[in-house]
Amino acid sequence: MRNLKLEIEYDGTNYAGWQVQNSKKTIQSVIEKTLQRILQEKVHLIVSGRTDSGTHALAQVANFKTKSKIPPDKLRLALNSWLPADIAISKAEEKALDFHSRFDAKSKIYRYSILNRPHPSPLQRKAVYFYRHPLNIGLMRKESKALLGRHDFSSFCASGAGLRNKVRVIKKITIKEINYPLSAIRYPFIAIDIEADGFLYNMVRNIAGTLIEIGRGRFKPGDLKRILLARDRKAAGPTLPARGLCLMKVKY
Amino acid sequence: MRNLKLEIEYDGTNYAGWQVQNSKKTIQSVIEKTLQRILQEKVHLIVSGRTDSGTHALAQVANFKTKSKIPPDKLRLALNSWLPADIAISKAEEKALDFHSRFDAKSKIYRYSILNRPHPSPLQRKAVYFYRHPLNIGLMRKESKALLGRHDFSSFCASGAGLRNKVRVIKKITIKEINYPLSAIRYPFIAIDIEADGFLYNMVRNIAGTLIEIGRGRFKPGDLKRILLARDRKAAGPTLPARGLCLMKVKY
Repeated sequence: MRNLKLEIEYDGTNYAGWQVQNSKKTIQSVIEKTLQRILQEKVHLIVSGRTDSGTHALAQVANFKTKSKIPPDKLRLALNSWLPADIAISKAEEKALDFHSRFDAKSKIYRYSILNRPHPSPLQRKAVYFYRHPLNIGLMRKESKALLGRHDFSSFCASGAGLRNKVRVIKKITIKEINYPLSAIRYPFIAIDIEADGFLYNMVRNIAGTLIEIGRGRFKPGDLKRILLARDRKAAGPTLPARGLCLMKVKY
Repeated sequence: MRNLKLEIEYDGTNYAGWQVQNSKKTIQSVIEKTLQRILQEKVHLIVSGRTDSGTHALAQVANFKTKSKIPPDKLRLALNSWLPADIAISKAEEKALDFHSRFDAKSKIYRYSILNRPHPSPLQRKAVYFYRHPLNIGLMRKESKALLGRHDFSSFCASGAGLRNKVRVIKKITIKEINYPLSAIRYPFIAIDIEADGFLYNMVRNIAGTLIEIGRGRFKPGDLKRILLARDRKAAGPTLPARGLCLMKVKY
């Protein structure tokens, strides 16, 4: 038996998220089917963490056990030739038998991307959230520091998510303005990067939605701290759409 | 009568190019229909130059005459709220009545984008051409200089294009390696930017296809000059797919 680890990039636009669900097309079901076709055995993928419907990943991590002796790089090539164009394997390697994509993950980094200019971008529309009104990025950056460290993030967890423990540790938040080099003209796009030991359901999309309310002036300095302490989803800003969200990295 | 100039970004993936053709969905037909709906009058767009099926634009330019007194910025907003998500107006302004998008254009800049790494990119797949084998970019850059200046570009013009005059002036060619900032990991993508006073049918895609043959070593140093002088399409490299091509800028 061997334990193979895959690093996966995907455009989540046309999928009902990562996890296998009856009759819906998911990232997991498509990769498992392709693996089974190549390896001629039943395969179960263990993922670092599911992503929601429409969410992207630059470097999702999943592992699986197999009896096959196929070299990892050959498997990667075979997968990429069979997988649809919106899923690709960027890396395949053999790990110790006890490696576990979820349990061994030390932290994950998600990025929420906001295109902040007067008009939308056809070329980037599937990977950014378009927000037309000016945002005070300096203020967003400053206020975001209130989220650093160990907190109960109930205010940023989708209501109805039946979790008991809503304590997570945010290790790092950075808010950068980035220009897509596709453009001679500037693409004023804002990247909110959050690194945490784990994420609650919709946590990044809810934090990003709250930061936008700060940037546009609806929430005031100090409000983010107050919202966090309220432990009440209704205190925070809106849930932004999945298309702006991308799993950037899983650290082990 | 007023003369309005539009700057247009589009994702060309789902269109049969710019120009109106019977029964096919084109960028021009969609924008003209939307303009007519807003302005309640027949509108004809004059474009800086057509783009082919599947080709993108970051800043295409078109103008049209109208009796309407609508302020340009209001028209831009109205257009963006009616247009499909893969077309957007980035700028609208009034010009002198004799301004002509095509005749007044001094030069245009096209970019051909190549993703050069071992695996494809689901997130960028619609705007880059994926090429797996290593490319000698320094050599491509050096050899590309042979194309600078006034030449007969028959070798890079699609055969069957019934043009007589195949002389154009390439003012500038740059070949850059750019990292998409979407990625913590590097996206080794190569941008070939060509500025010319005009372009023949498939000219950029044919030049890019020939430069790839140089970069991979199939064509040798000096071959590009030889191919240019041959004035024969069959001497050059393959036509790369439209999805890697983007009209970046029109200079007036």
